Amino acid sequence: VRCIFFYDELSQYVDSHQEEYVQTLRDWVAVESDSSDVLRRPDCHRMMDMTAEKLQAMGGKVELVDIGVQELPDGKTVALPKVVTAQFGSDPNKQTVCVYGHVDVQPAKLEDGWATEPYNLTDINGHLYGRGASDNKAPVLAWIHTVEAYQALSIDLPVNVKFIIEGMEETGSNGLDAMIVAQKDTFFSDVDYIIISDCGWLSRRPALTYGTRGNCYFFAEVEGPKQDLHSGVYGGTVIEPMTDLIGILDTLISPSGKILIPGIREAVAPLSDEEWKMYQDIEFDIESFKSKIGVSQLMYSNKVDLLAHRWRYPTVTIHGIEGAFSGPGSKTVIPAKVIAKFSIRQVPNMDPAVVKKQVTDYLYSVFAKRKSPNKLKVTMIIGAKPWLADTKHPLYEAGKAAVKRVFDVEPDLIREGGTIPIAKTFEDVTGKSIIMMPIGGFDDGLHSQNEKMSRYNYIEGTKLFIAYLHEVAHLKKD
Amino acid sequence: VRCIFFYDELSQYVDSHQEEYVQTLRDWVAVESDSSDVLRRPDCHRMMDMTAEKLQAMGGKVELVDIGVQELPDGKTVALPKVVTAQFGSDPNKQTVCVYGHVDVQPAKLEDGWATEPYNLTDINGHLYGRGASDNKAPVLAWIHTVEAYQALSIDLPVNVKFIIEGMEETGSNGLDAMIVAQKDTFFSDVDYIIISDCGWLSRRPALTYGTRGNCYFFAEVEGPKQDLHSGVYGGTVIEPMTDLIGILDTLISPSGKILIPGIREAVAPLSDEEWKMYQDIEFDIESFKSKIGVSQLMYSNKVDLLAHRWRYPTVTIHGIEGAFSGPGSKTVIPAKVIAKFSIRQVPNMDPAVVKKQVTDYLYSVFAKRKSPNKLKVTMIIGAKPWLADTKHPLYEAGKAAVKRVFDVEPDLIREGGTIPIAKTFEDVTGKSIIMMPIGGFDDGLHSQNEKMSRYNYIEGTKLFIAYLHEVAHLKKD
Repeated sequence: VRCIFFYDELSQYVDSHQEEYVQTLRDWVAVESDSSDVLRRPDCHRMMDMTAEKLQAMGGKVELVDIGVQELPDGKTVALPKVVTAQFGSDPNKQTVCVYGHVDVQPAKLEDGWATEPYNLTDINGHLYGRGASDNKAPVLAWIHTVEAYQALSIDLPVNVKFIIEGMEETGSNGLDAMIVAQKDTFFSDVDYIIISDCGWLSRRPALTYGTRGNCYFFAEVEGPKQDLHSGVYGGTVIEPMTDLIGILDTLISPSGKILIPGIREAVAPLSDEEWKMYQDIEFDIESFKSKIGVSQLMYSNKVDLLAHRWRYPTVTIHGIEGAFSGPGSKTVIPAKVIAKFSIRQVPNMDPAVVKKQVTDYLYSVFAKRKSPNKLKVTMIIGAKPWLADTKHPLYEAGKAAVKRVFDVEPDLIREGGTIPIAKTFEDVTGKSIIMMPIGGFDDGLHSQNEKMSRYNYIEGTKLFIAYLHEVAHLKKD
Repeated sequence: VRCIFFYDELSQYVDSHQEEYVQTLRDWVAVESDSSDVLRRPDCHRMMDMTAEKLQAMGGKVELVDIGVQELPDGKTVALPKVVTAQFGSDPNKQTVCVYGHVDVQPAKLEDGWATEPYNLTDINGHLYGRGASDNKAPVLAWIHTVEAYQALSIDLPVNVKFIIEGMEETGSNGLDAMIVAQKDTFFSDVDYIIISDCGWLSRRPALTYGTRGNCYFFAEVEGPKQDLHSGVYGGTVIEPMTDLIGILDTLISPSGKILIPGIREAVAPLSDEEWKMYQDIEFDIESFKSKIGVSQLMYSNKVDLLAHRWRYPTVTIHGIEGAFSGPGSKTVIPAKVIAKFSIRQVPNMDPAVVKKQVTDYLYSVFAKRKSPNKLKVTMIIGAKPWLADTKHPLYEAGKAAVKRVFDVEPDLIREGGTIPIAKTFEDVTGKSIIMMPIGGFDDGLHSQNEKMSRYNYIEGTKLFIAYLHEVAHLKKD
């Protein structure tokens, strides 16, 4: 049966509640739920409580699931933020979707170069600036408002809606995999589809995302003297850990971006003609991309190469060095122990376990050639696999229809250069199909200074979710 | 005329006043005169006042010289600690020495890993632990006690003694150069020799120091995108500033410590046979040096090479990188602007102006080969010259005689790997000869946790200064 869809009423309801939605987002952004900083853990707990309370107030069947503790480098432990699960409706005749999202955020400080206080949501010309606004608080709220809108107008939800909201996404989703495995036959038993809205569009055109890169994140630690030394008094007598570290980091990637670690490039699936054609058709303006990030020249000058290296080829980034002098001004120190942080984005058909061995073997062999008395320790602290969906799956066809209804355009089918490791876990554990349906703008500045969510994306995105539930209701059950 | 020297009486006086000297040092160490912390500036002012009062109470002609203000990064200014000058005796028939010292200290906190409260001088087995004990409060007091001892026994000072004591040494001696230039023809007009006791011995054997290295401190900034980018979302599309920076830093120095910047090594004065012989005779235990700094292998395995590279060859140290991720944990960032801090210790016959050009030209040319669209900016923020004295100068002969009298050994003639820029300033401005006469122990832990001054060095050091004044009295006037 095709049920009546009160889209216009729902859409008007959303429009007329815009200020309320913005205020809720402001309240959420005000919580500094930076999961990378254990000192902020109380804020993370509070954020999970607020999320649970919100869903409970809406009549959801809510649980705060204890997922254990996090081990700190000093051997101590600290409680992980609980995972919030919620359920709205349990009609066995309906499809059941499960929306995944997270309410923890990346670190942010005003002095990093923010134009506004990062935890005070600030509206400038319809753009709502604040840490976590786009990643991922507004999308989570948009899903919550979707259910609220149906409830407020007393319209039956076309599908059963479940939520799984975590508070450790930015720090590797610790404990979540185990929780999903543990609830495979309970919470997830009746779930038909999983929806993730933790990414963004590529341009002003709405998009559906069908792939993400994985991430292998490495620490390379070089340890020398037992404590920092004065560079005047000791310089010239010791082989400095920093020199060794710089030396091995410089062997990872060529100036033109070629990964120099043996075996990495060979593992990558070749670009098919079909892919080439798809990339060619995607709406993407290289010049505006360049001006957005403020560079005069990119790694590749044509659209297909650029998108391919953004989405479906691996890359190496050196993030920084812990233990060396990093302040402003000058300090005449020989750092005793330095730890480089670098990561390699994974793509099909790479395997994190193999990458770990390739990187580790390579760096130890490069280091051995230096004949340094210092000690090198290479560890892979994150090994997240890439994820790839079939764009012909009915879930994506439903997505295209919803985009068409709300925005009156065909969505771009895109991939994500970043990593959403949980997608791969959901797929592997539950065996269910997944769709990524972003509502964030292409210029939201995720993980950067001046992150924002635009009112347009927040509000029209909520409508997209409303329309999508309607479309999903008409899919044949898997 | 050779005057009678009451060394034994003076020496006994010093021995019998040991507890009083320790108490004065305790009072001085209790003042947290950390010049790097503007919040401690009142303590620095108090320390200068205490120094002036002490010298005044002894009948010296004392001045507190205003040397202006320090500009802070926020544009505000704060008064610099005044410089204390003092004069004891003005007999034109006597030599006049000027003792330079400082009473400001490096930062120290108990939680940095001190075993005792850093500002509470604590005696453990005759070692007096406290911040600034060795660097430079006890040596300054030893000079003051030297004058006091002569006065107490009503023995005429064999030379006129002047003091110039500052309170900004640990932070770059702001304002001191200008003050020396300004007083060239007044305070310094009758000074024959300058004595600096702001360093330490190399072993348990007393030493005279005849050289220090200079320091050229560089910032190398690579700027790319206009803000930090997410490494997942943008990795593979931009040429990352960090990759460029690592690439150019890796061209500064070879794994074995060879400086690769053209022209640097060529400028270094060759090691003479005489120097080689001197180094060979110096008391220095490589094994205890290794275990002190906690490394299994040094850059050079024989004493002469090691000491030469510590004192009279240049070295490159990479101190760290500003702007990159430097915290614990992981962050998936492509830093937009990264600034490496590195320094090259200067030795004769290098010239900082030439080094600046060599380093800058080299890095720009290395960077140009990378064909990166990022921008490189190399600046030299410190260009301090090395200082080298003639060990055959009568000033050093007098030093050897004083050491022989007090310790009954020949002193080691050593150099200092670090930089004492004021030595070069004194030399250049006043044209007078300088001697560095350390009394600190080799294991005093300057700038480190658990800094200490041993009672032995403090007391015997005072006797050394007493003996030295006697020896200097017999030098021919320059």
